[in-house]
Amino acid sequence: FENDAVRHLFKQIFKASLQLQKDDSKKHLLVSRKKQAEDTVVTLGSTQVGNGTPTIVAGPCSVESEEQVRAVAKALKNNGVTLMRGGAFKPRTSPYDFQGLGVEGLEILRRVADEYELQVISEIVSPSDIELATKYVDVIQIGARNMQNFELLKAAGNVNTPVLLKRGLSATMEEFLHAAEYIVSRGNKNVILCERGIRTYEKWTRNTLDISAVPLLKNESHLPVVVDVTHSAGRRDILVPLAKAALAAGADAVMVEVHPNPAVALSDAQQQIDIPTFDQFMTDLHASKLFPSLVESK
Amino acid sequence: FENDAVRHLFKQIFKASLQLQKDDSKKHLLVSRKKQAEDTVVTLGSTQVGNGTPTIVAGPCSVESEEQVRAVAKALKNNGVTLMRGGAFKPRTSPYDFQGLGVEGLEILRRVADEYELQVISEIVSPSDIELATKYVDVIQIGARNMQNFELLKAAGNVNTPVLLKRGLSATMEEFLHAAEYIVSRGNKNVILCERGIRTYEKWTRNTLDISAVPLLKNESHLPVVVDVTHSAGRRDILVPLAKAALAAGADAVMVEVHPNPAVALSDAQQQIDIPTFDQFMTDLHASKLFPSLVESK
Amino acid sequence: FENDAVRHLFKQIFKASLQLQKDDSKKHLLVSRKKQAEDTVVTLGSTQVGNGTPTIVAGPCSVESEEQVRAVAKALKNNGVTLMRGGAFKPRTSPYDFQGLGVEGLEILRRVADEYELQVISEIVSPSDIELATKYVDVIQIGARNMQNFELLKAAGNVNTPVLLKRGLSATMEEFLHAAEYIVSRGNKNVILCERGIRTYEKWTRNTLDISAVPLLKNESHLPVVVDVTHSAGRRDILVPLAKAALAAGADAVMVEVHPNPAVALSDAQQQIDIPTFDQFMTDLHASKLFPSLVESK
Amino acid sequence: FENDAVRHLFKQIFKASLQLQKDDSKKHLLVSRKKQAEDTVVTLGSTQVGNGTPTIVAGPCSVESEEQVRAVAKALKNNGVTLMRGGAFKPRTSPYDFQGLGVEGLEILRRVADEYELQVISEIVSPSDIELATKYVDVIQIGARNMQNFELLKAAGNVNTPVLLKRGLSATMEEFLHAAEYIVSRGNKNVILCERGIRTYEKWTRNTLDISAVPLLKNESHLPVVVDVTHSAGRRDILVPLAKAALAAGADAVMVEVHPNPAVALSDAQQQIDIPTFDQFMTDLHASKLFPSLVESK
Repeated sequence: FENDAVRHLFKQIFKASLQLQKDDSKKHLLVSRKKQAEDTVVTLGSTQVGNGTPTIVAGPCSVESEEQVRAVAKALKNNGVTLMRGGAFKPRTSPYDFQGLGVEGLEILRRVADEYELQVISEIVSPSDIELATKYVDVIQIGARNMQNFELLKAAGNVNTPVLLKRGLSATMEEFLHAAEYIVSRGNKNVILCERGIRTYEKWTRNTLDISAVPLLKNESHLPVVVDVTHSAGRRDILVPLAKAALAAGADAVMVEVHPNPAVALSDAQQQIDIPTFDQFMTDLHASKLFPSLVESK
Repeated sequence: FENDAVRHLFKQIFKASLQLQKDDSKKHLLVSRKKQAEDTVVTLGSTQVGNGTPTIVAGPCSVESEEQVRAVAKALKNNGVTLMRGGAFKPRTSPYDFQGLGVEGLEILRRVADEYELQVISEIVSPSDIELATKYVDVIQIGARNMQNFELLKAAGNVNTPVLLKRGLSATMEEFLHAAEYIVSRGNKNVILCERGIRTYEKWTRNTLDISAVPLLKNESHLPVVVDVTHSAGRRDILVPLAKAALAAGADAVMVEVHPNPAVALSDAQQQIDIPTFDQFMTDLHASKLFPSLVESK
Repeated sequence: FENDAVRHLFKQIFKASLQLQKDDSKKHLLVSRKKQAEDTVVTLGSTQVGNGTPTIVAGPCSVESEEQVRAVAKALKNNGVTLMRGGAFKPRTSPYDFQGLGVEGLEILRRVADEYELQVISEIVSPSDIELATKYVDVIQIGARNMQNFELLKAAGNVNTPVLLKRGLSATMEEFLHAAEYIVSRGNKNVILCERGIRTYEKWTRNTLDISAVPLLKNESHLPVVVDVTHSAGRRDILVPLAKAALAAGADAVMVEVHPNPAVALSDAQQQIDIPTFDQFMTDLHASKLFPSLVESK
Repeated sequence: FENDAVRHLFKQIFKASLQLQKDDSKKHLLVSRKKQAEDTVVTLGSTQVGNGTPTIVAGPCSVESEEQVRAVAKALKNNGVTLMRGGAFKPRTSPYDFQGLGVEGLEILRRVADEYELQVISEIVSPSDIELATKYVDVIQIGARNMQNFELLKAAGNVNTPVLLKRGLSATMEEFLHAAEYIVSRGNKNVILCERGIRTYEKWTRNTLDISAVPLLKNESHLPVVVDVTHSAGRRDILVPLAKAALAAGADAVMVEVHPNPAVALSDAQQQIDIPTFDQFMTDLHASKLFPSLVESK
């Protein structure tokens, strides 16, 4: 092995083999670009996620009442936003925190969404609730804490309702794509990936928005990519620049939490924006040229 | 507010209030020392976890066959170890990796454990399997990826079988204790906390063993604390020093993965130790004086 | 303290005091917006950094020869870029790696820059070289590894040459601003802050670009903010989306490494772009409308 | 390449080559075990660091006065500790914090150390102070923030005074060993490595003590390894278990900060221990059997 020529030869073989190994390990992933070159487009009513025109997902952290949801729905409608998020089953750090309204929350979301012609995105946390959820929601959200709850992923893979899968708190890109593969490999091809910030040492933001994840995921996978700016930032004052950055980086949608009165919200009181702030948020995005104007988008 | 005396007064009030706030937020946690001063001791057959005498948990990553489990069980018996771990339901990053033998794996574990008078610890990943599991296992393990799978925590809180709860990949101490609280607040008081390394930038180990977690958890909570050295290190060459460090820091038990032939293991092939290495591991721990001798422990 | 009214009162005082404390601790920072509301604009020849019109900094990782620097300088000139970076003193992980050409490198940079009417940015690593550097460079760069090399910061604060200060590998926003304060408090007010990615567990990028740092720093401080996309990404395929994201988030400039032949570069061979790729990079930025067109920028 | 036999062959070559590459890249490091199998022992007066018998380094964070240092020195003497640390040049986050007494601090340390027959360890922050420092100190400390201040490392490599090199806030093992190599490759072979915790998301400790670093460094390198429990924990209540863990993991020494009156300390007031607590700390370590008794150690 001390002979230079042999060493050189080995290095060449090594490099070729390394590439081979890598290609090998990725070649069976259904979520990869290598398996499907064209973008997956998820159709949600009149809106398409992943077709090159970015869109917005907005709504309250938790569903608290029909009045609250209606106030938000109206604001979405006014701003040309058709995708409404809202939490009915809330995964909370403490068992003593508000755990959501459950099925009653889903019913409220559905009723108000139908009234305003919106699509509903809501988190499901138990495999046994997936079937039930398909009756109420247009998109099943799987949250960051459940990204590697493989039983939940499998259950979501067994239905046809689109799934918005959030990246785990400290999930690698590879783990994120493999989690999506759990769903797609079961037959449900309508998966939307959601970057929502990762956990780092930095505490001026609740999480660190990993903006690089957007182009990496778009390059590696054909699935649409959404950026949740609210959970990334955990504060209101930088939501507009983060949303612009997400769109500039190639995100298919931006998700933001809106509440009629954040100060009294039963969860995430510090980071939801009120309706006038949401109106301004939308105005700023339209003005940025990174986002189609309201007229164009209709 | 510019007046010094007023500022000073405010600072005093501030500090008092701060303490008050903190005390307030922790005062309802059932897992805290403030709520229960004496250590919780979990009795597993002839072994007690949390009574001041440290113990060992060992066994294969995955149950692969009865022969494999029997070989390990025999090695445990020979070394005076009574707690056997083994995975039947395996949460794997990729859907294409070995997913475990399921109920068949639990049956093997139970049969062999009874033969060798061992206690069985095995991971459960679905809320709907908790009831079933209580028939086969002595301790239900909830894995790192499921630490905030609150539906699973609730289901585990509804039974009487002891629970070994692993810290999430990037869970804070606070989140870890609140996850335990989900179980205890439902009525199941036999919870064992397991530090298994956290995810950091450092890649010479699979995870970074957060040794400080041991005294912090022992101070803050009355629950027993186990350290999983195998998943922390992700390599074999430092298991003995890590186990010694865990015991020196006050851990109630050390967990280690043992396989009759790690090279052909269906999971974690790089980090499990073979039986002669396990024998040496036990010899080294006994020699360290951090651990009772085999004679004493009988 | 058990009385609810008293508790409520204390909480109000607590919150007021908390804000007071925070305001207090920040009030003396010269780099803060509270101390200076208007933006600091650093004038570098015909280019102004921080005046609302974004700009580009480009050049090789290391100065290797006059021919190499000239080739890059020409490409900059062709693209309307006036700020050229290049390393003469290289802080390298291993003592056996190329350590840079030193003063000879600075001489090359100056000569070529004068020829093409460019401004030179180059890293200085020793307090004793700061004086010398002022003869050759227009901007002294202080690298990430030296962000808390306080002797170097002090030396840079004692001269008038503008300073580009890079965020440390795992520096908090607070530490970053305090490092800048070391320079400004000595009298040198021309400091440019540079976000270059932070160290996290994610390995698909060399560092994790903390895009939130851009609006946070712009809000908190009046100093210009640059984003180094090359060191953030550590790969070439996502430089354009990251540069767009940086501009969309409000960065005053984007820094990128360019080399005539990256494959033979003496440092950072994996991540520098060649000249045709740089031309395309600039074309893409101009097309994005996030950046003034070449005509406008003249 | 699709042929299985060829693939298998390539994999074998790949693995062999991979090992070869790795061995290759490490083979020139003077700090590695491969280059020197036997332990480096650094002799400091009557104490040897790295000879298999662990020892203690203790002293105040900052030198504040001769009285303060004398009080600590006396406590060290009483406990059989011969290595005294103390900061004269203090690298502080804010330019407005106490920056240390400088040379006057070194003079105090030397005077008191001579009086009590102790060895002095003190941090140097500027390459130009290294020569000066050799007149006053027995060990030059290079702090975490300066671990990749390569000019400082080079200057420390040019003298004969032993160097205690702290791991950077987010330095990998590889970067740490390469930083030591900067010193050793210049001719100064007396380098002591110091693990002091790394920066992670967990905030119950100031840093996360990476206990695995101890056996990893001992295996990979022949240099002595010290663990600084004070900077790892950033709190007093877990110093004893962390010190025990460090010793159990194979550390050659434990470093702890002691101050006669921590409440009024000019730096690190929250984490230094007072003298009675230090006495108890030493008593606990002696009682743990992980550390030679006072009688044995004499």
